[in-house]
Amino acid sequence: MTEKLFDRVALIGIGLIGSSLARVLRRDSPGTTIVACARRAETLAVVERLELADVTTHDPAEAAAGADLVVIATPLSAYAEIGRRIGPVLKDGAILTDVGSVKEAVIRDLTPHVRPGVHFVPGHPVAGTEHSGPESGFAELFRDRWCILIPLPETDAAAVATVGRMWEQADMRVVTMNAAHHDRVLAMTSHLPHLIAYTIVGTATSLEESLKSEVIAFSASGFRDFTRIAASDPVMWRDIFLNNREAVLEILQRFSEDLTALQRAIRWGEGDTLQELFSRTRAIRRSIIEAKQA
Amino acid sequence: MTEKLFDRVALIGIGLIGSSLARVLRRDSPGTTIVACARRAETLAVVERLELADVTTHDPAEAAAGADLVVIATPLSAYAEIGRRIGPVLKDGAILTDVGSVKEAVIRDLTPHVRPGVHFVPGHPVAGTEHSGPESGFAELFRDRWCILIPLPETDAAAVATVGRMWEQADMRVVTMNAAHHDRVLAMTSHLPHLIAYTIVGTATSLEESLKSEVIAFSASGFRDFTRIAASDPVMWRDIFLNNREAVLEILQRFSEDLTALQRAIRWGEGDTLQELFSRTRAIRRSIIEAKQA
Repeated sequence: MTEKLFDRVALIGIGLIGSSLARVLRRDSPGTTIVACARRAETLAVVERLELADVTTHDPAEAAAGADLVVIATPLSAYAEIGRRIGPVLKDGAILTDVGSVKEAVIRDLTPHVRPGVHFVPGHPVAGTEHSGPESGFAELFRDRWCILIPLPETDAAAVATVGRMWEQADMRVVTMNAAHHDRVLAMTSHLPHLIAYTIVGTATSLEESLKSEVIAFSASGFRDFTRIAASDPVMWRDIFLNNREAVLEILQRFSEDLTALQRAIRWGEGDTLQELFSRTRAIRRSIIEAKQA
Repeated sequence: MTEKLFDRVALIGIGLIGSSLARVLRRDSPGTTIVACARRAETLAVVERLELADVTTHDPAEAAAGADLVVIATPLSAYAEIGRRIGPVLKDGAILTDVGSVKEAVIRDLTPHVRPGVHFVPGHPVAGTEHSGPESGFAELFRDRWCILIPLPETDAAAVATVGRMWEQADMRVVTMNAAHHDRVLAMTSHLPHLIAYTIVGTATSLEESLKSEVIAFSASGFRDFTRIAASDPVMWRDIFLNNREAVLEILQRFSEDLTALQRAIRWGEGDTLQELFSRTRAIRRSIIEAKQA
């Protein structure tokens, strides 16, 4: 669907998600001026080489000034400082959104910098790969995935709808949710799985050398899938865990209890307990296939 | 590579692995008579419909009698009884092998039933999918994966080589290993990942209903990969955990310690600890890609 929603879009942070969105805008909204902002010179060099933006800058304030839409797509730890710098220059009627994987912390960090007259629409396009950086983006990344928007009580409904239309251009399905609920759902579906994958791959790296090389050779038997997840961007994930601490710790506690119960069943040879759980988990896979998210 | 290694092969158990091997034999060794043995009538009906075997039977002894090669490919809990039934009928010079994911327990269960003159070559083709049953098999399942053979001190080297050639026909790379080492390597690369995946999917199934439906919708963000693993055959996996108890519990203990350390780092906001681990795990992924097992 080609529709020009914005004259000028500032992408602050242009890694996997930011650069994929740039590609969508290039494809579907050729009249839109794209401003890309990154801290590192090498990142901007890649953006220029791939012609993902019309303007590049290291300065978030320069990027945000005059933009109709500002999208923050950096690791979460940079948000507060970016908010502080762009807050004063955002134009009246501008929409500020983001793509962060945690939403209560984002609202906490950005809200103080959002002037009246600026529309703040926290967002989370739930899509990704284990790759990072502007060269790893692609316009189809978002296709058929969900984008969660978090309208605040004071948010203008039209601004929410406009941000939603942009993600629909990217072929996403858009839903709204409150921030606390979002953070609990994602703690289960995304943050805990990543934490577990990082842990298990870490456990493997600390094995004796003689075992370690064989772990790589025989990784196809299950381990491999965890290594893909555990190859995700380290800084982005550090920030997610630090910023969704309560929800992650709560779901991790449940997981640990469940794991201890299984450990006990193995130790005492309780085959029925194992088989019952393993049969139940198989059903969830079918639900995911039916929901076309497999 | 087409080469007739056996006149008559008995496949005792004809699920994903057994039926995939039947397809390889059909493709590469058309002169070989294939005997399929399964407990359930429905399984044999599928085998007959797909023409995966020349003879079908419910009786392991009937299947094994006169076979040059007998391949046990059932869940591990059936091995001892199968050994008891086929032991007396195995012909002189016959090769007995298996495809089980645990090797010390298999040797414990089968060795008492192997007469002198029969060549016992425990084996483990490390390949699989989350699907089970004879309809889910395919000849390419084994391609470029490893097959581990466990020669016993008394095993005839020529018999080991012959079993190796069969798996090479299936495009596997064949290595030998001792049983205890095999069981430790697989505990790390396969059994622990499956246990963790089963646990996390189980944790998700016990969430409140309002969260549960969203876990399915937003599964693409990491959780989904675990559900695929946790859709694996429940009985097969029950038996693996019960039969590789010591090695699984030992590696699980290491994992739990590592997870507790990460939990602590999140609770106390120790970002450096998280980032250091997440960077280290990324390197392992590169090793797997370089080893062409990705």
